[in-house]
Amino acid sequence: MSKSIFYHAGCSVCVAAEHDIINLIGSDNVEVVNLGEDRTRISEAEKAGVKSVPALVVPNGNTLHINFGASIKDVKE
Amino acid sequence: MSKSIFYHAGCSVCVAAEHDIINLIGSDNVEVVNLGEDRTRISEAEKAGVKSVPALVVPNGNTLHINFGASIKDVKE
Repeated sequence: MSKSIFYHAGCSVCVAAEHDIINLIGSDNVEVVNLGEDRTRISEAEKAGVKSVPALVVPNGNTLHINFGASIKDVKE
Repeated sequence: MSKSIFYHAGCSVCVAAEHDIINLIGSDNVEVVNLGEDRTRISEAEKAGVKSVPALVVPNGNTLHINFGASIKDVKE
């Protein structure tokens, strides 16, 4: 993959981090996924190593967990 | 400030995150500070809101705590 993927859950911590990430790397370089709205992608996020949101999965597959909004466990409930 | 500042403490979590951040935003756009080596800058990091390393302080002053290497308290000891 060439784009990063920013997973969030719509919380205020997530929204603030999303703005900062987009300012840093540009909206063209990141796909934003709201796991609260698009629950079908939760398993994809888990497979990518996302333990909490907000998180940025970078093109090499590494996951950067940013600040702390919610655990993936809480998002699933 | 126009550059971001990446604070770390030389731990393996920090080094991995540093590589990912530099790949994302470019080495020209980020100053890297090793608080383990440059202890005079710990207070600056604390004032910027850094609670743990690695952390990225972005140009608007927000702090993005990335993954978790060590708390600032531990770095100070």
